[in-house]
Amino acid sequence: MSITKSDLNNMDERYRAKLINSVSGYKSANLIGSIDDAGQTNLAVVSSVVHLGANPPLLGVVFRPHSVSRHTLENILTTERYTINHINQHITEQAHQTSARYAKEQSEFDATGLSEEFIDDFSAPFVKESVIKLAMHYKAHQTLALNGTVFVIGEIMALHLPPELIGDDGHVDLVAAGSVCINGLDGYYNPSLIARYPYAKP
Amino acid sequence: MSITKSDLNNMDERYRAKLINSVSGYKSANLIGSIDDAGQTNLAVVSSVVHLGANPPLLGVVFRPHSVSRHTLENILTTERYTINHINQHITEQAHQTSARYAKEQSEFDATGLSEEFIDDFSAPFVKESVIKLAMHYKAHQTLALNGTVFVIGEIMALHLPPELIGDDGHVDLVAAGSVCINGLDGYYNPSLIARYPYAKP
Repeated sequence: MSITKSDLNNMDERYRAKLINSVSGYKSANLIGSIDDAGQTNLAVVSSVVHLGANPPLLGVVFRPHSVSRHTLENILTTERYTINHINQHITEQAHQTSARYAKEQSEFDATGLSEEFIDDFSAPFVKESVIKLAMHYKAHQTLALNGTVFVIGEIMALHLPPELIGDDGHVDLVAAGSVCINGLDGYYNPSLIARYPYAKP
Repeated sequence: MSITKSDLNNMDERYRAKLINSVSGYKSANLIGSIDDAGQTNLAVVSSVVHLGANPPLLGVVFRPHSVSRHTLENILTTERYTINHINQHITEQAHQTSARYAKEQSEFDATGLSEEFIDDFSAPFVKESVIKLAMHYKAHQTLALNGTVFVIGEIMALHLPPELIGDDGHVDLVAAGSVCINGLDGYYNPSLIARYPYAKP
């Protein structure tokens, strides 16, 4: 079947949100940890982390306007430090619960039972239950004129993960890590390897 | 173990590329179809499609500078039309082969055996073997000063997919579609459902 632009315009808003959020494919499943100037921590599930480059090692994250992750965005812009923590099979329910609209003065760590972990002297909290954790420095952000979405660019300052996950070529085995992916607004999925292919040549 | 910024700086370039590309999580697996003014088609595997909003329905795609998908980027900026086609379990090897550096005058459709499909009067080619296909209109692009990456924003003009994949709530069943996800530069994965959770409330 074909769904056209005018079909989309006439759709129920929640139905359209679920349709469009799911139809672009699986996304990475991460928790972003942050802290404000007063020491209040925050934790938000995000499916919008995207790779921007390896040298320097840059990742982008999309924040929707007025979304529940607005406290996280405020913290990143204020403190310029945040963490990206992989969601694994054991914490999908708690990770999803961070998407509830908690008041700013309540930490999603306390609300969901996930554990804050502070590593070395990095100011933002990691998620103890995550197997793969990244320390991030804010570098820049751009607001998209089309819909007010904020695209935040950060640099990886440190990676924390079990060494046995890293292959001889540098590829990290996310299946062994138990990392999951997300589709749509509420679906969590467990990937299994189909194949890794050699560098393609004509 | 911890890998620091100075460790990353001192790493072999290919090792670092595989490490950083894999450590941010699974990504969506899509083929972007495009065509130039002379009618030459182009097809490129991308793992950087990200959701930007449902109303209007906007998706972003990251293009690395000097990457093999530069012909695709040129076509999008010239013709303002492109297609996003889900990679499924049956075409992962052919999809990966589109990442080879073919000359501009050779279509990756011909080179890989994937089939061009033209739907309605949309000028850009879809991938016939894909189950879920999106017709896209270019809306804007921004070049990131930090590393020359180009972020392309497009609007979904039409969705083409089997109606039985769409649930009562609008969520598209990607497991039934056979859609896959990507990790790193060369890994293709088949996800299975862990759970869908209700809208989270405090």
